[in-house]
Amino acid sequence: MTATVSILAEGQRRIDAPLRSALDRLDPATRHVCGYHLGFWDSDASPISGTGKGIRPALALLSAWAAGAGDEIGIPAAVACELIHNFSLLHDDVMDHDTERRHRTTAWAQFGVPAAILAGDALCSLASEVLAEAPSATKDWAVRCLTASTRRLIAGQAADLAFETQDQVSLAECLKMAADKTGALMACSASLGAVLADAPAELALGLAEFGEHLGLAFQLADDILGIWGNPERTGKPVLSDLRSRKKSVPVVYALASGTPAGDRLAVLYAQPDELNEAQLHEAAELVSEAGGKDWTEQRADEELEAALARIDSLLLPGPIAEDFTTLARQLSHRDR
Amino acid sequence: MTATVSILAEGQRRIDAPLRSALDRLDPATRHVCGYHLGFWDSDASPISGTGKGIRPALALLSAWAAGAGDEIGIPAAVACELIHNFSLLHDDVMDHDTERRHRTTAWAQFGVPAAILAGDALCSLASEVLAEAPSATKDWAVRCLTASTRRLIAGQAADLAFETQDQVSLAECLKMAADKTGALMACSASLGAVLADAPAELALGLAEFGEHLGLAFQLADDILGIWGNPERTGKPVLSDLRSRKKSVPVVYALASGTPAGDRLAVLYAQPDELNEAQLHEAAELVSEAGGKDWTEQRADEELEAALARIDSLLLPGPIAEDFTTLARQLSHRDR
Repeated sequence: MTATVSILAEGQRRIDAPLRSALDRLDPATRHVCGYHLGFWDSDASPISGTGKGIRPALALLSAWAAGAGDEIGIPAAVACELIHNFSLLHDDVMDHDTERRHRTTAWAQFGVPAAILAGDALCSLASEVLAEAPSATKDWAVRCLTASTRRLIAGQAADLAFETQDQVSLAECLKMAADKTGALMACSASLGAVLADAPAELALGLAEFGEHLGLAFQLADDILGIWGNPERTGKPVLSDLRSRKKSVPVVYALASGTPAGDRLAVLYAQPDELNEAQLHEAAELVSEAGGKDWTEQRADEELEAALARIDSLLLPGPIAEDFTTLARQLSHRDR
Repeated sequence: MTATVSILAEGQRRIDAPLRSALDRLDPATRHVCGYHLGFWDSDASPISGTGKGIRPALALLSAWAAGAGDEIGIPAAVACELIHNFSLLHDDVMDHDTERRHRTTAWAQFGVPAAILAGDALCSLASEVLAEAPSATKDWAVRCLTASTRRLIAGQAADLAFETQDQVSLAECLKMAADKTGALMACSASLGAVLADAPAELALGLAEFGEHLGLAFQLADDILGIWGNPERTGKPVLSDLRSRKKSVPVVYALASGTPAGDRLAVLYAQPDELNEAQLHEAAELVSEAGGKDWTEQRADEELEAALARIDSLLLPGPIAEDFTTLARQLSHRDR
């Protein structure tokens, strides 16, 4: 745990200056919105301390180290992944009408939709720019990995939006959405440093597979927290995913379970009015009763085990393997 | 004129298949929105003929030919520029609430804001991907040129949006906005083929400067058409830029002119209600009277002359210089 906190903090620390310097290339208005979103400053430009968890930068740095490369390779990879992650958050918040993220007003709610769209665009484009400047002979491959992940990220968000108006969502569709929306960029982050370091394909692919499993484990754990998480720790209202009638994995599992509890949940989800507190608690109970919680927890465990096994198979130097492992365990059982 | 029509048509023809194949990488929902926007198909997926003018692909192909390279270099450059141009159109239409483009319903008006945001994101990311796959030793430079132009494009749109609520806009600010919003990507298009072909820096820079001047000439001509253009040919309502009280170059020149006509225009622009037809015609007359039309036309001519002089200075092979020149003349005096 301490080791993980330190690798996350270490990742954040190492990318802080390069990330700020990437933003410095933007026009002042767009830079201000980007820095606000990233937690560098408040809406009046007074400095605050960043609030991102830094998962993707930590993975990218580790993947460079795993390939024997240093920060000159790890940092551009880490910065690029963090930029793409935040590009997607900025645009997702617009699309989902979310007004709060990380206990702060979202960028579009603070500066308007156009400013938030432009800020996301800027981060998306900067990500390719930063990679294309890296001192590496394989930066074209790194750009291709990153853009291919971005396509999957977009596919995942498109599916997530489609689910809102789709009557039936299969468990397979739901898992694919989660893999695209979260797994793809985690896979990229966990391998991009190695790709940029011109590592053997076996290592880069192995790290990508680790990241893909970890991403799914992470998303499934997040789906559990979205229903049963402690609001004080998650920063979201209690039962928030049920409140917005999100078709997350536990819910979709329950709806497709063919159990009486699943059928009762379907009736609740289909009613036009907002669910009241009693109904929200009933819905959570029904998801559990239909097996949605158990199944999701077990699948998260399986994905974590697959991630850990993949790391073991790569025979990385001890401390690096340990950092990957510790990070993976914490992320998939994280409590905030 | 015939030569220009043919280079534009030729550019469109050559990028048609590669552009479609780039879209084929996207998830079906996002691909559908992108292809709709690009004029490949209608909202029900029935094929239609594309409606873009193909200016940027034509410039990019010419710039590859100018460097002695062929389509294997010219096409990725042309596709990347066309993708970035359309990414910006998709997002601009969302930000500007425009419901019509090229005589068709805009993507957001047809499919909703989230779908249009995702489609723009997809095109932005695909542009880097396509360049990073080009068979070229300088593709990293090409990605950097493209992303630097994208930053300027974003800066231009941010300035354009800020002008809406800004009391005073100086002519210098307005020209910078136009250069960022239109000049940057034209400069990139006119040079990206050469950059990707590893041309001497002198050639690549010369072509970029040509494109920058041409872009400004093109934008100034567009500003004239936005007030005095024939609606049947422009596809926009008569006096459209005045109707939306856009701070285009002729208007800003007039407002800053210190003339009685300029002052009367300021009073009209400041009134809260919509301008009626008589007021719109009066506003157009005031812009002329304050010198806004003459000044803009003259500046457009100067930019065109500077563009043509820059092409001459490069001593390109005759037919290529001629294509650049013909294209430049038509674009800056174009009547639609």
